[in-house]
Amino acid sequence: MGIITRLAVLGSTGSIGQQTLEVVRAFPNKFQVVALAAGKNTAILASQINEFKPRFVYYQDSQSQARLTNTTHESLPLEDIARHPEVDSVVVAISGNSGLTPTLAAVRAGKRVCLANKESIVMAGKIITDEAKLSGAQILPIDSEHSAIWQCLNGEKQKAVQIILTASGGPFRRYSPAKLKAVTVEQALRHPSWQMGKKVTIDSATLMNKGLEVIEAHWLFNMPFDNIRVLIHPQSIIHSMVEFMDGSIKAQLSYPDMRLPIQYALSYPERLDNPQLPRLDWDNISSLTFELPDFGTFPCLKLAIEAGKRGGTYPTVLCAADEIAVELFLSRLITFVDIARYVGETLEQHQAIASPGLDEIMAADAWARQKVLNLVKGDS
Amino acid sequence: MGIITRLAVLGSTGSIGQQTLEVVRAFPNKFQVVALAAGKNTAILASQINEFKPRFVYYQDSQSQARLTNTTHESLPLEDIARHPEVDSVVVAISGNSGLTPTLAAVRAGKRVCLANKESIVMAGKIITDEAKLSGAQILPIDSEHSAIWQCLNGEKQKAVQIILTASGGPFRRYSPAKLKAVTVEQALRHPSWQMGKKVTIDSATLMNKGLEVIEAHWLFNMPFDNIRVLIHPQSIIHSMVEFMDGSIKAQLSYPDMRLPIQYALSYPERLDNPQLPRLDWDNISSLTFELPDFGTFPCLKLAIEAGKRGGTYPTVLCAADEIAVELFLSRLITFVDIARYVGETLEQHQAIASPGLDEIMAADAWARQKVLNLVKGDS
Repeated sequence: MGIITRLAVLGSTGSIGQQTLEVVRAFPNKFQVVALAAGKNTAILASQINEFKPRFVYYQDSQSQARLTNTTHESLPLEDIARHPEVDSVVVAISGNSGLTPTLAAVRAGKRVCLANKESIVMAGKIITDEAKLSGAQILPIDSEHSAIWQCLNGEKQKAVQIILTASGGPFRRYSPAKLKAVTVEQALRHPSWQMGKKVTIDSATLMNKGLEVIEAHWLFNMPFDNIRVLIHPQSIIHSMVEFMDGSIKAQLSYPDMRLPIQYALSYPERLDNPQLPRLDWDNISSLTFELPDFGTFPCLKLAIEAGKRGGTYPTVLCAADEIAVELFLSRLITFVDIARYVGETLEQHQAIASPGLDEIMAADAWARQKVLNLVKGDS
Repeated sequence: MGIITRLAVLGSTGSIGQQTLEVVRAFPNKFQVVALAAGKNTAILASQINEFKPRFVYYQDSQSQARLTNTTHESLPLEDIARHPEVDSVVVAISGNSGLTPTLAAVRAGKRVCLANKESIVMAGKIITDEAKLSGAQILPIDSEHSAIWQCLNGEKQKAVQIILTASGGPFRRYSPAKLKAVTVEQALRHPSWQMGKKVTIDSATLMNKGLEVIEAHWLFNMPFDNIRVLIHPQSIIHSMVEFMDGSIKAQLSYPDMRLPIQYALSYPERLDNPQLPRLDWDNISSLTFELPDFGTFPCLKLAIEAGKRGGTYPTVLCAADEIAVELFLSRLITFVDIARYVGETLEQHQAIASPGLDEIMAADAWARQKVLNLVKGDS
């Protein structure tokens, strides 16, 4: 890697993508955006192209391409951007299953992969980590929890014995099952500590997000599921902890701000002095609290950990079923507690493949999406 | 360092010394005790000699030597043990100013120095750290706070920007100045979270101990005093924290048990799996709390930080005056609040030397001890 790191930002118009560009803006001599990729948000993409003047751009929307032709960049498919020789680090901030193929392309090309896309590692954790070993690609998590774990492991000679993944608990912590049934979309979108996209906000409310993170931690840190525990920590200041064989625990703390894990993934192993990042104010932090998660009231967490343990195509089905169920909830077609119910039923009906290839993963994904729709149709 | 680390345990019969030997006992294939040194506790020393069969022994008490002649070890002065070629790591668990010369001997000989003796680094921080740079000696702190900092710094490429030194606050946290005046020796010896020797227990109650630790942190981690803050954390689970330039903070957590920092200093950079060390039980930790220290009610903390900032012979005078004042309090000759008063008056009357050599440090030490006695005599 040269003095300037050449970045491809895939999913540049989303929440993580925009915050990545904020970090880049703070360090014009450290990072250069050579590629941008976005979905349908043409207006923001146009402004980003104008500001960062990337060499390569990917548009999901063919109309965008037509509208942005007066610029000097080259239009390339996502995978070609991810593996392009002029790209050093690939930020995968695309959400959902479309993150999988560019992630894999970047991993196979031996890039530094700054991974904000949970789905790719949940669906294809084994394939991605195996390929990274072969290519020497570094996978650096852009997720406050996994970044915390990564930071705590830094410099340690030996494996950790336990990962303690913290969770805010979401807006419905301590709700009774009855109260949870009446939850509205508006309530579910009001997260107490993080500003995020809609899908991950709902996943945080069901604790599915934490379940996906358990699977992610399993693959990223080669940690058995039984050695990953989830701890509710409503203040979202300790972003996760790691326990070592001597019983010593390291924790990483900061206010909830995704720019810190983004910047760390970009600058690792160095840290950068960014005055825009908030500093913890100990004059106003009097208590950090912890609770055990309520697996009964939040069945998504249990479903995810079970799917992770069973492996094969189960995590893919979990991911895909959840994506559709959350969409249906956001469209007010099913209730909040239905999300877990439909994901659970889909998992139950799945005929899993133990060591799936990519095609089988994509087939399981498609099967699960259709299955949720069928189940909902059958119920209504 | 060979497969077996050859240890000299100086101060083997004290609290830290005995816990060091507990760690050694757990790893007979990792550590070998080649030297023991103790003060007047001949009975315990005899039993340690019998168990560990050290090659070299130092007795403070000449009568001990006579009583222990039926063993096969060689009797050596402290400094000769500290620099002996057959010693790899020197654990300095002697308390008070007698730790200084053996620490310096070990540092000059390029040993790994596992330092539990605060006084040496407080009195002669500049000399010790300068000599360590020359000889290549590693100084590893045996102090839960400094070990925590050391663990958090491990693997980081850049200097920290702030050290957050936690303090239990001692048994008199939130006491009013009036209530503090009536404190008895028995109350002061009842520390809420740590089992320690008498001197350090009283120093914890006055917060002098935390002040000495600030000075220690200044030297060990080359950190300006203004970038070291003290935070009261009554549960004594977060042993300290380090803030980096990107605002990220790392913390080290464990139950209060000195065997962990002892073992880490002995085994660094590795960690050892010691089932005897307690594991944090998150089923029973619901809250970690933080408060700002009350500099008004606990003037020793302020006196120490000021002495550290002023430098020269001031920290020595602080240490020595405190040692005598604590002794007088334990002998019920002065009150609890008198400790700070006499230390403060002694510092005020001191004619400091800016860059003292060892002789000048020892002279300042002797002056301060006599000064406290004179002040008390004058008052009574």
